[in-house]
Amino acid sequence: MIIGELLNSSRKAIRPLMDAYDTEALRKIADAQKDAGADYLDLNCGAYVKEEVERLTWRVENVGLPSGKPLCLDSPNPAALKAVLPMISVPVVINSVSGEEQRYQDVLPLALEYKTKLVALCMAEGDIPQDAKTRCEIGARLIERLLADGMPSEDIYVDPLVQPASVSPDGARVILDTVSQLKAAYPEIHFVCGLSNISYGLPNRKLINRYFLAQIAAAGMDSFILDPTDKQLMGGYLVSQVLLGQDKFCAKYLKAHRKGLFE
Amino acid sequence: MIIGELLNSSRKAIRPLMDAYDTEALRKIADAQKDAGADYLDLNCGAYVKEEVERLTWRVENVGLPSGKPLCLDSPNPAALKAVLPMISVPVVINSVSGEEQRYQDVLPLALEYKTKLVALCMAEGDIPQDAKTRCEIGARLIERLLADGMPSEDIYVDPLVQPASVSPDGARVILDTVSQLKAAYPEIHFVCGLSNISYGLPNRKLINRYFLAQIAAAGMDSFILDPTDKQLMGGYLVSQVLLGQDKFCAKYLKAHRKGLFE
Repeated sequence: MIIGELLNSSRKAIRPLMDAYDTEALRKIADAQKDAGADYLDLNCGAYVKEEVERLTWRVENVGLPSGKPLCLDSPNPAALKAVLPMISVPVVINSVSGEEQRYQDVLPLALEYKTKLVALCMAEGDIPQDAKTRCEIGARLIERLLADGMPSEDIYVDPLVQPASVSPDGARVILDTVSQLKAAYPEIHFVCGLSNISYGLPNRKLINRYFLAQIAAAGMDSFILDPTDKQLMGGYLVSQVLLGQDKFCAKYLKAHRKGLFE
Repeated sequence: MIIGELLNSSRKAIRPLMDAYDTEALRKIADAQKDAGADYLDLNCGAYVKEEVERLTWRVENVGLPSGKPLCLDSPNPAALKAVLPMISVPVVINSVSGEEQRYQDVLPLALEYKTKLVALCMAEGDIPQDAKTRCEIGARLIERLLADGMPSEDIYVDPLVQPASVSPDGARVILDTVSQLKAAYPEIHFVCGLSNISYGLPNRKLINRYFLAQIAAAGMDSFILDPTDKQLMGGYLVSQVLLGQDKFCAKYLKAHRKGLFE
């Protein structure tokens, strides 16, 4: 599953368009992601702390719903989620709950009531744990609790929380180990992450992002929050699918080749 | 470890140079691989079935030794190996033994006598096994036998035998599983493979090869037989090292960036 990340208020190129309620420009970005193969469109208004309810409502109404695509509501704010969920009839991912008690209690009931998919972050109260063992423990506790509370396993998307390789040299290894261990224990659960944190602080970030995608896909990651208009990144995704036997007869890869994706 | 694959008699561009004993052209190819970062140079004369002894001897003398680089003797032919091993004082990899009895008995004594590194193929008599389980069993038996016969573990390089993803859709998965399982059982053993078979029969082969490298490196493959003059492939190798915490302070990556490797 590809979640298009571009409609995010923390992106420099996007913020002014959001400030101006520039419907046309924002819809163009939605369409570009749709055309490039996004399965879901991420909507994030987190940068507007006090206006998040109003901002997310406007965005869903004027950009998200007109696209016709499934939506990823990128907010832990129950007021913002409550405002928009009743408006939406396409499939929804809520991003996210975590092991933080208040956040869990705020967000889970909405996911259950509106039968959405749900991203679960591998962190509890306090800092993000640095080692794979602690993330796996937190992830497993969270999965067990979500299942016990009624979330269908196929709607749970665990996010192992990517951190920069420049800061923690075993940052990628922690993700690989967390995903492959949790995947072995819970084969029916999905995994999702934002890729680009991995390359923070290094040159040629896009190059690093796409090899990282190939590696974590091999470990069991099946969903990615990324820029689908980055052709080389999407090329890496398609190649990974060929390599992992997830592209029958290499059909998607060959089609992309004929359409010149790899030129 | 990077083993430069270009000096191989089965390569179309190389064969005429070998036919003509073109020392200058062949040395240029050796130097290009050396400059591009090869740790070993592969020498393969397998296409000259009847003349392999004479051909390999000439090649070692006139191309291999003048390069000053460690050499990979790509032959299971004991006569050819016997002819050249006494000439060589740089480190040597012999490629290869397998579970085939005759081959094992022919090649192992030479590896022990000359204290070379040794590639061990995950196959026994008959066809290459299609599943990871059988390859692991054959690989484990071969490792145990090599250890019992006196090969130091750090000199054993297991080759899981890459097959085309276009023919067997789980071809890459078999390699990933074979390497990660054998690596878990024998952490001190090395792993090596030729990459390019994976992309046989598909367009954009080089693109597939480099993502495959990133994936198998994450699974535990530490040595690669490849074309080191393919800059994008070597870029993939350097990025993989950053991601797997094998490039301290990202020093090699940053140096390659400054030298324009990624332009």
